[in-house]
Amino acid sequence: MKSKTLRIIPLGGIGEVGKNMTVYEYNDEILIVDAGMMFPDNDMIGIDYIIPDFEYVKQHADKVRGIVITHGHEDHTGAISHLLEAVHAPVYGTPLTIGLIKAKLGRRGFVQDANLKTIQAGDVLQIGPFKVHTFHVCHSIPDGIGLGIETPAGLVVHTGDYKLDLTPVDNWPTDYAKLGEFAQKGVLALLADSTNAERPGWTPSEQVIEPAFDKVFQQAKGRIIIATFASLISRMQQAINTAVRYHRKIAFVGLSMTENVRIAKELGYINFDDDLEVPLETALQLPDEKVLLLVTGSQGEPTSILGRLANGSNKRFDIKPGDTVVLSSHPIPGNEEVVSRAINRLLEQGADVVYEALAPVHVSGHASQEELKLMLHLVRPRYLIPIHGELRMLKQHARLGIEVGMDERQIAIVENGRVIEFAHGEMSLGERIPGGYVFVDGSGVGDVDRSVMREREMLSQDGIVLLNLVMDQRSGDLKDIEIISRGFMTSTESEELFNDLQARIGKLAKHANGRLQQDVSKLAKSYLYEETKRRPVVFVNVSRN
Amino acid sequence: MKSKTLRIIPLGGIGEVGKNMTVYEYNDEILIVDAGMMFPDNDMIGIDYIIPDFEYVKQHADKVRGIVITHGHEDHTGAISHLLEAVHAPVYGTPLTIGLIKAKLGRRGFVQDANLKTIQAGDVLQIGPFKVHTFHVCHSIPDGIGLGIETPAGLVVHTGDYKLDLTPVDNWPTDYAKLGEFAQKGVLALLADSTNAERPGWTPSEQVIEPAFDKVFQQAKGRIIIATFASLISRMQQAINTAVRYHRKIAFVGLSMTENVRIAKELGYINFDDDLEVPLETALQLPDEKVLLLVTGSQGEPTSILGRLANGSNKRFDIKPGDTVVLSSHPIPGNEEVVSRAINRLLEQGADVVYEALAPVHVSGHASQEELKLMLHLVRPRYLIPIHGELRMLKQHARLGIEVGMDERQIAIVENGRVIEFAHGEMSLGERIPGGYVFVDGSGVGDVDRSVMREREMLSQDGIVLLNLVMDQRSGDLKDIEIISRGFMTSTESEELFNDLQARIGKLAKHANGRLQQDVSKLAKSYLYEETKRRPVVFVNVSRN
Repeated sequence: MKSKTLRIIPLGGIGEVGKNMTVYEYNDEILIVDAGMMFPDNDMIGIDYIIPDFEYVKQHADKVRGIVITHGHEDHTGAISHLLEAVHAPVYGTPLTIGLIKAKLGRRGFVQDANLKTIQAGDVLQIGPFKVHTFHVCHSIPDGIGLGIETPAGLVVHTGDYKLDLTPVDNWPTDYAKLGEFAQKGVLALLADSTNAERPGWTPSEQVIEPAFDKVFQQAKGRIIIATFASLISRMQQAINTAVRYHRKIAFVGLSMTENVRIAKELGYINFDDDLEVPLETALQLPDEKVLLLVTGSQGEPTSILGRLANGSNKRFDIKPGDTVVLSSHPIPGNEEVVSRAINRLLEQGADVVYEALAPVHVSGHASQEELKLMLHLVRPRYLIPIHGELRMLKQHARLGIEVGMDERQIAIVENGRVIEFAHGEMSLGERIPGGYVFVDGSGVGDVDRSVMREREMLSQDGIVLLNLVMDQRSGDLKDIEIISRGFMTSTESEELFNDLQARIGKLAKHANGRLQQDVSKLAKSYLYEETKRRPVVFVNVSRN
Repeated sequence: MKSKTLRIIPLGGIGEVGKNMTVYEYNDEILIVDAGMMFPDNDMIGIDYIIPDFEYVKQHADKVRGIVITHGHEDHTGAISHLLEAVHAPVYGTPLTIGLIKAKLGRRGFVQDANLKTIQAGDVLQIGPFKVHTFHVCHSIPDGIGLGIETPAGLVVHTGDYKLDLTPVDNWPTDYAKLGEFAQKGVLALLADSTNAERPGWTPSEQVIEPAFDKVFQQAKGRIIIATFASLISRMQQAINTAVRYHRKIAFVGLSMTENVRIAKELGYINFDDDLEVPLETALQLPDEKVLLLVTGSQGEPTSILGRLANGSNKRFDIKPGDTVVLSSHPIPGNEEVVSRAINRLLEQGADVVYEALAPVHVSGHASQEELKLMLHLVRPRYLIPIHGELRMLKQHARLGIEVGMDERQIAIVENGRVIEFAHGEMSLGERIPGGYVFVDGSGVGDVDRSVMREREMLSQDGIVLLNLVMDQRSGDLKDIEIISRGFMTSTESEELFNDLQARIGKLAKHANGRLQQDVSKLAKSYLYEETKRRPVVFVNVSRN
């Protein structure tokens, strides 16, 4: 490593660059920004979640001086417990961010070991050679920050997830003045959120939600059930404000919902009179038109409250005709089918369902094209490195950079693990280190790979067929065949097929040479394919008795 | 069955009502409209496709007088071969529809048995007691028809899939006059397409595509590759027109693409000079800026040409920097993730990729809200039965009916298999017959059900572990244990775990009573869960030797 070179390495994210972690390195010292997790794609079978491959960080664990978390979302905090197993460094975050991290680490029995440091947006932190100027940004969770990272090699602005909401619900706008201040100092590079780089215009303010809620409350005759992300504190505040106006009591339902509300209320990020909240049991006794339930499960996840209400498997209460259900959310990519099915099932049960397509009950937390351009004008970076997005979004972000006057050579689109180097004010691309992701399944980290997943895929496609052959030890004759199948076909349909297969194996066994196991396997596979056009995974076990 | 009652039964579709088939029944005679298939949802593991459950039709096969197919899309034609195995009745369709059906049945070796009757839009067919007035509708495939079905019980209008494109590419607008004529006669019921009932406004005309193509051709410096649905004949015509203007030769790539173009050209639905088309081999020899490739795979399907180009597994040519790829399509629900990944992979290979978010290179083939309302005004039905849509869309369609002045009692939202009865001009809901769907997997129809699929799901979640125990016949001691796993974890990681498990089983076997198999299974499951927090499917086979 050249000691006067600043190195920046985006890590993590499935196809998204720098989504979950970014490494800053100068003079053999390391600063880590964010440590998040992601949920698996639909084709990552049986995987619980995914964390960045931070092998590089592990190898240089002694050089890590600090970890700064920009905001409290899972994709920025969810890998902290894994990271802290390898790295002993303080974790910095604003009060809400640290509050949420504490709760999360607490659930994993991890909190006492962690060195968590609460900071305020605007604080300047000296972390090794990095002078980190934190500044407030608006996002779909309060108390988010971006970072101006000052190093001897230059000043780098790292936006974190942000939008330029001009009328935020908490009246706390993005710190535009600080961005201008950075520009005056001279910004070497901007690493900026590209999530909505394909979206024209300006992301609507979170304020547009409350009139939509108002209309829902005006028209609803029965209970109102609002499902949203448990981290969308300002959305909850708006639901609460509306409930006050329409004289409804509120029950919070779902573990993450109740916990987040408790933390946010304690820390002052959400405000309501104590007597507004009632336990669920009380709410269920009140007249329907006096009740608002705030629940988890805006993505239709089958284990969430809304998912269970949709499937009719919720324990403490059911949907009933007259209920109004509001999905105050947007399906995360890959989840569209599940959310749509949940809407249909709620409608089947007689609920009125209000969702994005019908009313403005959700807005994005990320900056759209005009905001991205304004960010570039405010910060005036020498180099732009679009992050937080798939390649398609990064390319669009780059196009926006060119639209506002940047040159192609000033923009770097990189993949995770690519080292971006800055020396003497010039950017160059360095080596590529492992920068992919690691599957977490159960308690295992990294012990499931693509080959295991291909096996899972194969098992699932047409199921399995187990053949247990028992041969007579003396005569060598076939004494018994047991055929067990799972996921192949219904047992009523398979009976005849398996009887026929048994007979065929019986014949084969009479003339078998030493390769009985292989021959039976081959016969079974080709016979089953011939008859069903399916290719179950076949296992043959031969024992002698 | 009351003989003077008209019965209408929507069938098929996964959560979509009447998507694939509708049964009309009067005086013990049956008319079937459409016989389509659907592709499985993401959670329908290993299923090839889905067809309507037409058990009712099979039971009344002798009463079926005819099958009318409204247009040539798979979701309206794909189950014909299955239907014709049970029902011997003529199949009516317009020239393009019949041409496509012939090709499809031909591939299944079925065509000679089928009684296919080519009709022209506007023809009136007497099918048993049903006088069927066919009329042209615009859709994303040419030569689509809707039906005015006259019965002694009244006139029912069945729109089929449609949009009210006022400037269709083939200059053949929807037959508005016929709709007005129906209204004058008096329409008892309207069964209408609800696909876009959630979409405000008016679906843009297919004509908007050509300027977008023009811009792409103007800017592209290398090859242009347009991926679209093989059935989108008018889209291909526009690509061809643009290629002519920019002096590019065209190669059609992909089985369904070449076949559909051949059929459409023979029948006059697509027009171009023969010397415009070149074989792929020739196209690959031409200068890049002289080439347009029209390929299949607009949904990113891994087996399609575009899917293979994205994955780098196409045989005859690869993507190269300078290529411009146009995705002239919209992801079908559940497919968003796959399409997005294909875009990223094409970009990685250096292609410029143009898709819906960046330019108007696709429009829908279905009517939006204003069109649905206009349809209601044109037809003035006594009753509205929204079909072709999930419950959420049907509900919106019903709301639009109310907006244009209908009463709630005039609108029936039904599920598949619900019999809708009309007698003396009044609608009522009758019995419910089996109206779900049937899974087709390999050559099996209906031999995979939800329980088999749950087994597949279980196999895929954490894989399988097979334990083959060999016991000494005389001493009863454990002689050998073989452990085989698939989809559980990588073999390097599992070695130690399995060694330990073997030792534990060895200990258990020493004190085993008669329930060795169950005890080993229980031990293995709990040990593996304890160590990995995974629950593989465990099979234990005990043999004595």
